[in-house]
Amino acid sequence: MVTVAVDAGGADLGPAEVAAGAAIAARAGVGVILFGPAAEIGPVVAGVEVVDAPVSIAKAADPAFAARATPEASIVQAARAVADGRAHALVSGGSTGSALAAALFNIRRDRGIHRPALALPLPVPGGRPVLMLDVGANVNCRPEHLVQFAHMGSAFAHAVLGIDSPRIALLSNGEEAVKGTAELIDVHEQLSGAAGTGLRFIGNIEGTRLFEDAADVVVTDGFTGNVALKLIEGVSGRTIRAIRDSAVSTSRGRLGGLLLGPTVRSLREQLDPEATGGAYMLGLRQVGVVAHGRFTRRGFARAIEVAARGVREDVVGATRDALRAAGALRAPAAVAAQDG
Amino acid sequence: MVTVAVDAGGADLGPAEVAAGAAIAARAGVGVILFGPAAEIGPVVAGVEVVDAPVSIAKAADPAFAARATPEASIVQAARAVADGRAHALVSGGSTGSALAAALFNIRRDRGIHRPALALPLPVPGGRPVLMLDVGANVNCRPEHLVQFAHMGSAFAHAVLGIDSPRIALLSNGEEAVKGTAELIDVHEQLSGAAGTGLRFIGNIEGTRLFEDAADVVVTDGFTGNVALKLIEGVSGRTIRAIRDSAVSTSRGRLGGLLLGPTVRSLREQLDPEATGGAYMLGLRQVGVVAHGRFTRRGFARAIEVAARGVREDVVGATRDALRAAGALRAPAAVAAQDG
Repeated sequence: MVTVAVDAGGADLGPAEVAAGAAIAARAGVGVILFGPAAEIGPVVAGVEVVDAPVSIAKAADPAFAARATPEASIVQAARAVADGRAHALVSGGSTGSALAAALFNIRRDRGIHRPALALPLPVPGGRPVLMLDVGANVNCRPEHLVQFAHMGSAFAHAVLGIDSPRIALLSNGEEAVKGTAELIDVHEQLSGAAGTGLRFIGNIEGTRLFEDAADVVVTDGFTGNVALKLIEGVSGRTIRAIRDSAVSTSRGRLGGLLLGPTVRSLREQLDPEATGGAYMLGLRQVGVVAHGRFTRRGFARAIEVAARGVREDVVGATRDALRAAGALRAPAAVAAQDG
Repeated sequence: MVTVAVDAGGADLGPAEVAAGAAIAARAGVGVILFGPAAEIGPVVAGVEVVDAPVSIAKAADPAFAARATPEASIVQAARAVADGRAHALVSGGSTGSALAAALFNIRRDRGIHRPALALPLPVPGGRPVLMLDVGANVNCRPEHLVQFAHMGSAFAHAVLGIDSPRIALLSNGEEAVKGTAELIDVHEQLSGAAGTGLRFIGNIEGTRLFEDAADVVVTDGFTGNVALKLIEGVSGRTIRAIRDSAVSTSRGRLGGLLLGPTVRSLREQLDPEATGGAYMLGLRQVGVVAHGRFTRRGFARAIEVAARGVREDVVGATRDALRAAGALRAPAAVAAQDG
């Protein structure tokens, strides 16, 4: 059975909500070790084990420092359980920063990986989500990082999201190969050549086509990805709100709005981040998923199930194989020098 | 009277549509010199002069090269008319690339300006537009470029858009001053210090708040700005379409959609780029506006009126004064070295 280590410390609705999500996942056949304040978690169902860890660093001002300095924190204990082999994957319901730091220090990046990345399925109204990475783990990226992200995203989309031959695109300011920063042009060249071996690289993509089912995985640096992610959230929220506000301003519009209620609700559901389980930490030695602190039990259950699926489908091994085949693994010499 | 040189060569609806827009502007008191194929333009109203220029480089593969190599092109002739003093401002209805190149070679950047930038008012559903710059003139930007963009955008928003004390923000991946790339952190520091003199700098902004009336001018590099711009277009288009598609899928939804028709139309109107006249080329010795090739006469008229307003309000002088006061003008030595 796959066992997932879950940090219950950072959820807005409290540890009991995470435990309720864990119960759903356990009933679906996933083993869960829950790290959090036992007193708040209370009794749990079979298949869920609780490790009392009352200290949370989800709200720490400097999460990277806190993850090093607070070994007793629930997220650090959960990450250590994965590193020790007591669990196969990590799920955090707290801050992305502390989850990334705890995972990096304890689970560590996989051999030959330059940098782990954060991948997020962007919900597409009326369509299939698009996996975007990096959405914030690495503000500054070198070309070789982006090349690896392409393979990491491809392997994940295939193994975990069940996309047969994922189309990989680079987010840029134009579709032509010569568009973008010097770094992006370099990445485009590499992915069009040997570094793209085994990859279905379809070239550059612009934001206008991101939601037109043109690509399955979109690769970008963590700065642009994070800016893009928040823009998408801002625009779609604002657009839905403008329609609603405008609808209630006339009686004709009010009636129309009532009749369209199910439509707008279904749109909101399609945009619901809980359906995808959160953001995925790729490039680690084990699978990691960062659920959103706002999630309800449904979102946490989904995060645990996605993590378990990543273990069952061996997404880490598949990523490693893809990078090796493309000659895109970090050289052992560089590993020794940079890890020292 | 203010005279605007207008390139009629790149409009999708043809030169006659641009001439119709020029007629609207002329009736509002703006002088227009129209550069384009006289045979297609036909007779024009008083206040509009036609210079026969049948060659267009709006669809050139390499617009920067074409702008240098094709002195007879309508956009090049229009830019030269501004440089020669026959007109006070430039409006192009063609490609942004050829307009930028023609303006840069002929009108030239203003003294002390590192790089001209392209500023675009982003329509906000149910709110006032947000001016974003750079949206694509400069893929790679140094901190001193972004510092100037802040002043250029502020002066334009004040003088031309009529915003009293425009709030200037930096687009970043977090609101804290330490968020973003090393370059952005540097810009934040500069704008918080002496380089921010006379500026209402409010710090970093994330995409989630871009449409919440949190800032009037948003500063970013041309790569991020262009990606953001197209993402916004993609998301808002997709969201409106998903509501419409979903509405027509049930009879209840169809009725609701019919009743909401005016709402969706008004939303589309609010998002209508014609209302803002296009993108503004800032940092030149004269005002330049790039209308969208898709525009109808209404959009071209608006572009000409915005350009004329920029001349009347002396936005170029205001920008120069603001940069001087903030000590953010390019040093004369650097001017000599880089211009040589």
